Amino acid sequence: MNYTFSHRVQSLKPSAIREILKNSSAPGVIPLSAGNPAPDAFPYEAIGVISQRLLQDTPIAALQYSVTEGYAPLREHLRAYMAQKHQVGTEKDEVLITSGAQQVMDLLTKTLLNEGDTVLCEAPSFIGSLNTFRSYRAKLRGIPMEPDGVSIAGLREALETEKNIKYFYTIPNFQNPSGITMSLEKRRQVYELCRDHNVLILEDNPYGDLRFAGEDLPSIKSFDQEGVVMYAGSFSKVVSPGMRVGYAIGPQEVVQKMVVCKQGEDVHSNIWAQIVCHRFMTEYDYEAHLEGLRSIYRRKAGVLVEAMREHFQPLISWSPFEGGLFAWCTLPEGVDMLDFVKRAADRKTCVVPGTAFLTDESERCQSFRINFSTPTDGQLREGIRILGETAREMAE
Amino acid sequence: MNYTFSHRVQSLKPSAIREILKNSSAPGVIPLSAGNPAPDAFPYEAIGVISQRLLQDTPIAALQYSVTEGYAPLREHLRAYMAQKHQVGTEKDEVLITSGAQQVMDLLTKTLLNEGDTVLCEAPSFIGSLNTFRSYRAKLRGIPMEPDGVSIAGLREALETEKNIKYFYTIPNFQNPSGITMSLEKRRQVYELCRDHNVLILEDNPYGDLRFAGEDLPSIKSFDQEGVVMYAGSFSKVVSPGMRVGYAIGPQEVVQKMVVCKQGEDVHSNIWAQIVCHRFMTEYDYEAHLEGLRSIYRRKAGVLVEAMREHFQPLISWSPFEGGLFAWCTLPEGVDMLDFVKRAADRKTCVVPGTAFLTDESERCQSFRINFSTPTDGQLREGIRILGETAREMAE
Repeated sequence: MNYTFSHRVQSLKPSAIREILKNSSAPGVIPLSAGNPAPDAFPYEAIGVISQRLLQDTPIAALQYSVTEGYAPLREHLRAYMAQKHQVGTEKDEVLITSGAQQVMDLLTKTLLNEGDTVLCEAPSFIGSLNTFRSYRAKLRGIPMEPDGVSIAGLREALETEKNIKYFYTIPNFQNPSGITMSLEKRRQVYELCRDHNVLILEDNPYGDLRFAGEDLPSIKSFDQEGVVMYAGSFSKVVSPGMRVGYAIGPQEVVQKMVVCKQGEDVHSNIWAQIVCHRFMTEYDYEAHLEGLRSIYRRKAGVLVEAMREHFQPLISWSPFEGGLFAWCTLPEGVDMLDFVKRAADRKTCVVPGTAFLTDESERCQSFRINFSTPTDGQLREGIRILGETAREMAE
Repeated sequence: MNYTFSHRVQSLKPSAIREILKNSSAPGVIPLSAGNPAPDAFPYEAIGVISQRLLQDTPIAALQYSVTEGYAPLREHLRAYMAQKHQVGTEKDEVLITSGAQQVMDLLTKTLLNEGDTVLCEAPSFIGSLNTFRSYRAKLRGIPMEPDGVSIAGLREALETEKNIKYFYTIPNFQNPSGITMSLEKRRQVYELCRDHNVLILEDNPYGDLRFAGEDLPSIKSFDQEGVVMYAGSFSKVVSPGMRVGYAIGPQEVVQKMVVCKQGEDVHSNIWAQIVCHRFMTEYDYEAHLEGLRSIYRRKAGVLVEAMREHFQPLISWSPFEGGLFAWCTLPEGVDMLDFVKRAADRKTCVVPGTAFLTDESERCQSFRINFSTPTDGQLREGIRILGETAREMAE
């Protein structure tokens, strides 16, 4: 047999992150390349108790087919919770439960994008989402990041010049990979600019609850009275990523089309996991749990920053970050970034090259991404020491 | 905001089955329209025990991110089990765990099909899969069904005349909706014909383990030494549909592309469910469980046939079926099928109109589909009585 693949697949490459993740689980490797929640961040005792009761009391409900839109009590709870706590969602919005937030990116793209249409995104941006957009043959246009979020001038210029723009993809809180948080001023500007150009905003907020410094800022969706924003939320970083439970909150008309697309992809998301998430949110002290997570990551970020101060300065710089799971580090001119990442990997310390997060991987980039949630404190200190040493050797 | 949807979505309609399923869960409705496994078919005690142990002993493994290909021990076990028991899979094949078998249909289509390419399918065929193919703007070409499976003359003619055929989609065992099982002779012919035309076969086998009469036949994949067949298996009918665990066994080269597509859709499938399926297959008497399922459905099919003999004959006929969950019934000329389905629904008895399973829903069809796994015995008898009464009234 000869296989002829679709155009969309011919141009796809396996995600560099996934490929790196595979190697990073080899014995002895220090995993600064992953994005896994810390093992002590899982509320596994509560999940065990909920799951046991669920499978004893109402096993059929937890194991039978369900509806595509998602477990109704979870949808209702999320609607109320997100409206009350985050001013996210209006009467014109609908909630859809997805198989992880990645599926929100997938379903919105499937719903809106024809081959060759344009997606605006931050540059750099989350490689997983970029690859999803690429799988629909989107034309990706990256907008440069500034310390307080995406460049407004760059966004305006792109909105005015690009054709068939379907949405602007943004991670306003502790962006992956840059760690940057968009300022309140810019959130309003982004909302108004996109609204005025009749372009949807895909607001991806997987890390919003993981702020360990500074003050919470309102989401872009909280300004939305006109159906401009599709909000993507996730339980991956706050309950469990292996459960694959995410959600979309967005304009009814768009969500209903996404539901039809989801029917064809996986019928519905794992129902056990949806019920567990619902009960964990409603029967436990969810806010105390989130506060606990923030403590864990505040402490781990502290370990990272202390190690970077000792081993990175003055050669490697890093962007300030007030939450999330990542630090964005930049090598001095003269140190080849890809060579650096390769040498570090040879020393069993894995980080992700910054080029992986660009719309064009062949562009020049001096940065790399460090994850501080996956490694132990010891691995973190040792990994940073090895990275610092590697950079010094290369700079000499 | 004005929303402009993609071409693929503009032409999509919500699945009639899903829409009917929603109504069929209303109080008092007799659900002959669904496809849910019988409540007593769930091994929920075993799942409860496995899950409890899992979440106590290795909670992080059950809740953390995993790899896109699926839980390695489950993939390895399935490879060995399917090769040994069903002669499915060779060294050139690979196993991919999916979010239900529906995702096999989705990923293969994404991997192979450009807009406007042709998919050959049985007519009638499973609406869920047809809608997946439609979501990629496939041109669907239906091949008529005969009592021993798809028309070979029809398949040959289509293979010779259609352009850009990407695969032939077939459910050889207890086909949904017709209940028809493809003969051994035809399985060989289908394999050879497609191989000779360099066209893949997508063999969907969700009901293969649910044979309650007659003798097992080898799957088309069991003939495959040349990478012609993508086999789709599922735990939905034999363990739990709400878990959403299915799998593909097919040519390495194709599966690897499907993995890249899956990365962009949902990263990986719920890992708890994958581990539960693995442990249930390896730590329990899986063959005894399957035998138990066959007993349940043999009995329920007996209840259905007895009721049909009493209330349908001679007006409504039905195709013989030796397994699966469905019976395909045909109304006499002169009784309008869609009107019949509507009148039955008014009497709170839901069946699926046969037109829902055609590539062109506007074609004429006198048949409807009955599911006998979801309703209780009492509902089944009462539903059949109401359907028979409705048909008699309309025929008068």
